[in-house]
Amino acid sequence: MALPALAGAARAQAAPDALAHSQVQSWAAFDTSGTFAPHTITRRAAGPRDIVVEIMFSSICHSDIHTYKGDWGMPAFPLVPGHEMVGRVIGVGAEVRKFREGDIAGVGTMVDSCGTCANCRADREQNCLNGTTFTYNSPDRISGGVTYGGYSRKIVVKEDFALRIPPGVDLAGFAPLLCAGITTFSPINHWNLQPGQRYGVIGMGGLGHLAVKLAAARGAEVVVFTTSEDKLEDARAFGAAEAYLWSDEDAMRRLAGSFDLMLSTVPVAYPMQPFLNLLKLDKTLVNVGALFPVEGLQGMMMGFGRQSLAGSMTGGIAETQRVIDFAAHHGIAATYEMITPDQIGAACQKVITKDARYRYVIDMTAA
Amino acid sequence: MALPALAGAARAQAAPDALAHSQVQSWAAFDTSGTFAPHTITRRAAGPRDIVVEIMFSSICHSDIHTYKGDWGMPAFPLVPGHEMVGRVIGVGAEVRKFREGDIAGVGTMVDSCGTCANCRADREQNCLNGTTFTYNSPDRISGGVTYGGYSRKIVVKEDFALRIPPGVDLAGFAPLLCAGITTFSPINHWNLQPGQRYGVIGMGGLGHLAVKLAAARGAEVVVFTTSEDKLEDARAFGAAEAYLWSDEDAMRRLAGSFDLMLSTVPVAYPMQPFLNLLKLDKTLVNVGALFPVEGLQGMMMGFGRQSLAGSMTGGIAETQRVIDFAAHHGIAATYEMITPDQIGAACQKVITKDARYRYVIDMTAA
Repeated sequence: MALPALAGAARAQAAPDALAHSQVQSWAAFDTSGTFAPHTITRRAAGPRDIVVEIMFSSICHSDIHTYKGDWGMPAFPLVPGHEMVGRVIGVGAEVRKFREGDIAGVGTMVDSCGTCANCRADREQNCLNGTTFTYNSPDRISGGVTYGGYSRKIVVKEDFALRIPPGVDLAGFAPLLCAGITTFSPINHWNLQPGQRYGVIGMGGLGHLAVKLAAARGAEVVVFTTSEDKLEDARAFGAAEAYLWSDEDAMRRLAGSFDLMLSTVPVAYPMQPFLNLLKLDKTLVNVGALFPVEGLQGMMMGFGRQSLAGSMTGGIAETQRVIDFAAHHGIAATYEMITPDQIGAACQKVITKDARYRYVIDMTAA
Repeated sequence: MALPALAGAARAQAAPDALAHSQVQSWAAFDTSGTFAPHTITRRAAGPRDIVVEIMFSSICHSDIHTYKGDWGMPAFPLVPGHEMVGRVIGVGAEVRKFREGDIAGVGTMVDSCGTCANCRADREQNCLNGTTFTYNSPDRISGGVTYGGYSRKIVVKEDFALRIPPGVDLAGFAPLLCAGITTFSPINHWNLQPGQRYGVIGMGGLGHLAVKLAAARGAEVVVFTTSEDKLEDARAFGAAEAYLWSDEDAMRRLAGSFDLMLSTVPVAYPMQPFLNLLKLDKTLVNVGALFPVEGLQGMMMGFGRQSLAGSMTGGIAETQRVIDFAAHHGIAATYEMITPDQIGAACQKVITKDARYRYVIDMTAA
C-alpha cells in the first residue's frame, strides 16, 4: 500500500481531466455471430475511491465466447467482453490508498459488490448477497445500464476491485491470472492440495495450462489429461509429471483410484465418471469448466468410493491478489499469443476449435 | 464380546449338526418379472470363524428391486435377495469369539472381504481392493457360485461380517438398519453434522425416514422434502422440524442457501440442481439414492456457491455396529409393515409405487 505521503503526492500530480467521464474506444459484439467491431462507450467520472486504468492487455476467456453466443441467456448488445485486463493507473480519486498514478493494476471478473453482507465481509465478493456487479454484461449500479469489460482502452473501477500487479512481471502474461489464474488457484487452496499429492488436470487450455503451472509450483505431482496430442509435450514443459490422451485406455485403467484431487477445465459437458473413477476414496473432482448441465455421472460409482463432484468459480479479491503475488514469486505467467483488437473474432474461433496456445492476449494499445 | 469361558460353554452346547451344510428354504426371483417363489438353496458347513443364523426378519431394500429387474445388469437367477436381516445364532464355529448360541445377529450388505488390504484395515470392507463379497448375487469365494441373501431361513456367515443386535430392541425394526440405517448414518458422520445444523432430507421412504430419525437424534434441524402429501405429518412424527412438498415453490425460494448438509434418498434420477441451490456456500448434497446416471446438475450454479454433489453408499462393519448401538441407545428403529414370504412380490410393487410405509419386513419364521 502506498504511504500516505506518496499517495498525496500522486494525487497532486493527477491531471484533473484524467478523472472526468470520457468517451472510450472499445471492441464490441453486436450479435451472437462472433464478429467484433469498434464501438465507443462512456466511462464514468472517477469517484473518490475509484481509479482510472489505461488498459494495456486484455485476454480472451472462454466465458467471453459463451456470453456473446448467448449460451447463458441473451446478453445486452452491444457487448464489450473482457474480464482479464492489466493496465496503467492514469488517475486516482482523492481517497484512493492502494494505487498511485503510474502503478500497474489488474481488473478481473468483478467491479463492485455491497461490501457489507456476510459474504463480502468474508472476502467472497463474488457471492455478494446483494448482487455482485460483474465486469461486463452486468447491471451497473453506479452508472446505470450495463457494465463494459476489458476489450476497451480504459476502465474506471473502485480501487477495492483492482489488483496490484508487480511492475516487473510479464504484464501480458499476467492478464489471464485475473480469471483463469484465480479460477484454477482457488480449488488448490480450498481443497488444500499438498506437495507430493497427485493432482489430475482435465483439459489443458487457458485454464488448464495455468492449473498445471500453479499446482506444479506448489509441489504437487500434476497429471494432465488432454484430447490434443501436441499438448502432451507442452504439459511437461509447464511442470506436469505425466500427460495422457483421454483415449489412452491403458492409462485410465492403471490410474484408477490414484488421485488426491482433480480439476476439470473443459468448457463443455462430457462424461465425467471415467475421471471420477481415477480419484482415491473420498476425494473430489472440481469442475471449473463446464457451466452447462453436467453429464455422465454414475451415482453408484460415486457412492462406491464416496467421491464428490464440486463446483468452483473464480475467487474473492483477496485470493485473487494472492494468486498474483504467488505467480510473481514463482515466475509464473500465462503462455499466450499476442493479437491486435481487429483479430478478436478470429482468435475466438481458434479458442472454440482448441487451437489457442494457450491464451490470446489483446494488445489494447495497438492502433 | 463373550468371555472365553462362556464362549467355550456355548461351543460345548452346540448341536454338531447345526454347523453342517444344509438345505435351506428361500424365496427367489427366477426372472425380472418381480415374482418370487420358494426355492431350496445350500448353505455351506460353518467354518471355525463362521456363525449360523436362523433368520427371523429380513427387510426389502429398493436395491433388491433394482437387482431383480436387471437395472444394474442381469443378475444370476435364481436370485435370493435380502441384505437387511436379523436372526438368532444357532451355531458357532470353534473359534468364534463375538457370538454365543442364542445371541441375536444381523447381516447387512457384505459377507466377506480380504481383511488384509489397506481399505479393509481401515474398516472399509465395502471398498476391499481384492473384491468385497456382497450378501447376494456376488461371486462366493468360499462356496463357489453366487451368494444368496436374506430372503431365506438361514445363513452361514463369517462372524466378522455379523453385527451384534441388542436382544431387547424391536428386532424387526432393526433389520432395516443393516443397509438403510448405515447408508443414512454414514453421511452424517463423514460430513460431521452438528447439533443445530440444518439438514435437508430429499425423499422419505425406507432410507429417508431413517435419515430423519437418526439426524434428529443427533440434534440436527431436519427438513424433509417429499412428493407425498401424507408423509408431511409422518416427517414431523419422525423428528423433522419442517416438511415440504417438492412442488412448494415458495419454500424452495425461501430456503435457498440455508442448509449445512443435504441427503438425497430418491432411488431414481431427477433434477438435483434446485436442491443444490438450497445449500449454503461450500456445502454438500450427498446422494445415496440414485445409483443410475445423475441428472440435472448445472455447473455454473454449483460453481457459483462452490457446492458439491457427493456419492455415498453403506459403510464398513465397525460403522454399521455403531449405528446399531446408536439406534438402540436412542430408541430408534425403522417404521415397518410386517409381511409373510408369499407377499414379497406384492410388497416390492408397493415400494415401486411409493406405497411402502416405510419398510416391508418379511417374517421369515412364517410358514
